[in-house]
Formats: sequence, C-alpha cells, structure tokens
Amino acid sequence: MAYIPLPNDMPGIRGLMHYCPETALPLNKLVEVLLQRSLTLSKGERELIATYVSSLNKCQFCASIHGAIAKHHLNDAELVKQVQTDPEQATINNKLKALLKIAAKVQKSGKEVTAEDIINARRENATDKEIHDTVLIAAAFCMYNRYVDGLGTHAPDDESIYDQIGAYRAEKGYLAPNNTLSD
Amino acid sequence: MAYIPLPNDMPGIRGLMHYCPETALPLNKLVEVLLQRSLTLSKGERELIATYVSSLNKCQFCASIHGAIAKHHLNDAELVKQVQTDPEQATINNKLKALLKIAAKVQKSGKEVTAEDIINARRENATDKEIHDTVLIAAAFCMYNRYVDGLGTHAPDDESIYDQIGAYRAEKGYLAPNNTLSD
Repeated sequence: MAYIPLPNDMPGIRGLMHYCPETALPLNKLVEVLLQRSLTLSKGERELIATYVSSLNKCQFCASIHGAIAKHHLNDAELVKQVQTDPEQATINNKLKALLKIAAKVQKSGKEVTAEDIINARRENATDKEIHDTVLIAAAFCMYNRYVDGLGTHAPDDESIYDQIGAYRAEKGYLAPNNTLSD
Repeated sequence: MAYIPLPNDMPGIRGLMHYCPETALPLNKLVEVLLQRSLTLSKGERELIATYVSSLNKCQFCASIHGAIAKHHLNDAELVKQVQTDPEQATINNKLKALLKIAAKVQKSGKEVTAEDIINARRENATDKEIHDTVLIAAAFCMYNRYVDGLGTHAPDDESIYDQIGAYRAEKGYLAPNNTLSD
C-alpha cells in the first residue's frame, strides 16, 4: 500500500496521477515529448534509455513498464534485458552505447558527466539534440522513479500486467486515457 | 560553456529551455504547479524544499535561483542559508523539518523513504497532500539539477543576477516570459 491513501488500486505512477491530476498533466506531457517523438533517436531507443535508468534506480514499476514498451517498439525482449543488465555487451550500435554511458552518469549526478563523455558520443555520430535528449530523459526518469518509490507505491510482480500496458502505451503514447484498471 | 552549443548566453536551465522549447513547456508548467500554488505549503516553504534539494545535489544554478526566490517570498535571506546548511537548526516549524528530512531521502533515492518518515511528518501535522508535494518537488529537482549540470551549463558567480531573477520569478511565476537576457 502506498504511503498516502490513493483513491484507487492502480499501481506505480498511475495511482499518483489520479490522486493529483494537476501535476499529472505536465508529467505526462513531458514524457510524451521525450519518449514518443522520434525526430532523432527512435522511440525504442528512447524507451531503452528510460528503462536502463529506471533499472539503475531499482524502480521496479518504471523499469518493468518502460521495458515492456521498449520491447513492443523493438520487438525484441532479449535486447531489453541485455541493456538493463550489461549495455556494453548488448546488440545495439555504438552511438546508443555512448549515450547510455552518459545516461548512467546522469543517474548518479549531473556533475558526473564530463566533456570527454560528450566527445565520445559525438565520435559515434551522436548529434547535439540526441545528447540533449539523452540527458533530459535520464534526468526525468530520476524524477519519475523517485516519485513512484518515494511514496511507496505498489509494483505488481505479474509481468503480463506490464506487457499489456506496454503494448497500449507503445501504440497510443502517454496522453491517451488509461485503458484498464491497472494502467 | 555548455556541452552543446546554445543559441544564446543565458545561464543554467534558461539556455536549455530556449534550445528546446518543446520540453521547456511541460518543464515550466510542472514547476509552476509545484512551486507557485500555495494551497497547502506556502510558496516560500516550497521554494525552500527546492533550494535544499538543489544544494544537496550541489547544483549552483538551481540552488542560487530558488534560494533567491525563497528569500523574496519569505523576506529572510538568513533563513534560506540556514535551511541550505543545517535545516534541523533552522528557525522553521517542525512540520517543515520533517518534510525536509523526507526531501533529503528522496534526493538520494525514492527507496530511502520509510513508513516511519511519513509517520513522523504526520505527527507534525503534515497532510497527505503536503507529503505528496514534498516528494514530487524533491524528485523534480533531482531532474532539473541533472538537466542543468549534465549538459554543463554556465552558472554565474554574481549573486545579484540570481537576486534579480529571483525577485521577478517570486512575483510573476514560472510561466511569465524572461525579463532579462540572463533569465
């Protein structure tokens, strides 16, 4: 049970968003822009960054949901697991590996990111916008993860729940209404 | 100089917001709801939480700006410094002290917050909404701080710059247009 009484039994951030719609609106708009616009990195790559940071923060709810969304975008469950456990060995391109290294540093602190990390990413053909988006996605998930866990929300253990939500969000995005009681 | 070329010389998050207006909009809407609505905690108290978390994250730009905004709301520069250095000894009420303890835990990780921390805050008459808002403000500044520092933005050393911006934001909020080149 969450630390504050929520008006529903929705898990993770969804219960909090029903509790406080005023903050839910900009929180959902932010994640929609960050993860659903694919002008630079693909949607699947963006979700991998979100999943990886959520795993580093040990946030079960966010890592499971965004892992499921990434899986639906990329059609590759194994790849998602690889990125969560050992991105250096994952079958992703070198640009994404360099960006995930930056994301891992942001997860610790913004101050951990060095000019050399940026040079390394540029060497792998990362653009300024891709570097910008990586830092902001990683930073944003340091917020979402803390919001979800700092209020002690419930994270289901049943993977099929995440899979169902993941399929819906991958298709409809973050501004679509909830489609099930558990979303 | 920031890690990515910004189209202006604005410091901290302001330069990034000009670089990427698409994400600036929900980022500004979120901070407006979190810090400028005073239905529960006062605006000054909310800014103190933001300032304290930014100090813990050693984010000079955010700690200085939100410290200046808090000062303008509370008309007490000394109190802002006390909260930044030793909130337990600061001349604030016990409810805010209990909430700042929760904020400090969120700064480390959402998982650090315990049921006992929540009970302690309730004992000092913190409401559910105040606990919710404290966790989300602390979590949000873990994002803003990482965004600002992860992209290596410039933070001026001149306190008068923060003071000028602080006076403007305290009065006008976060959705008002920038009033100076440095804001």
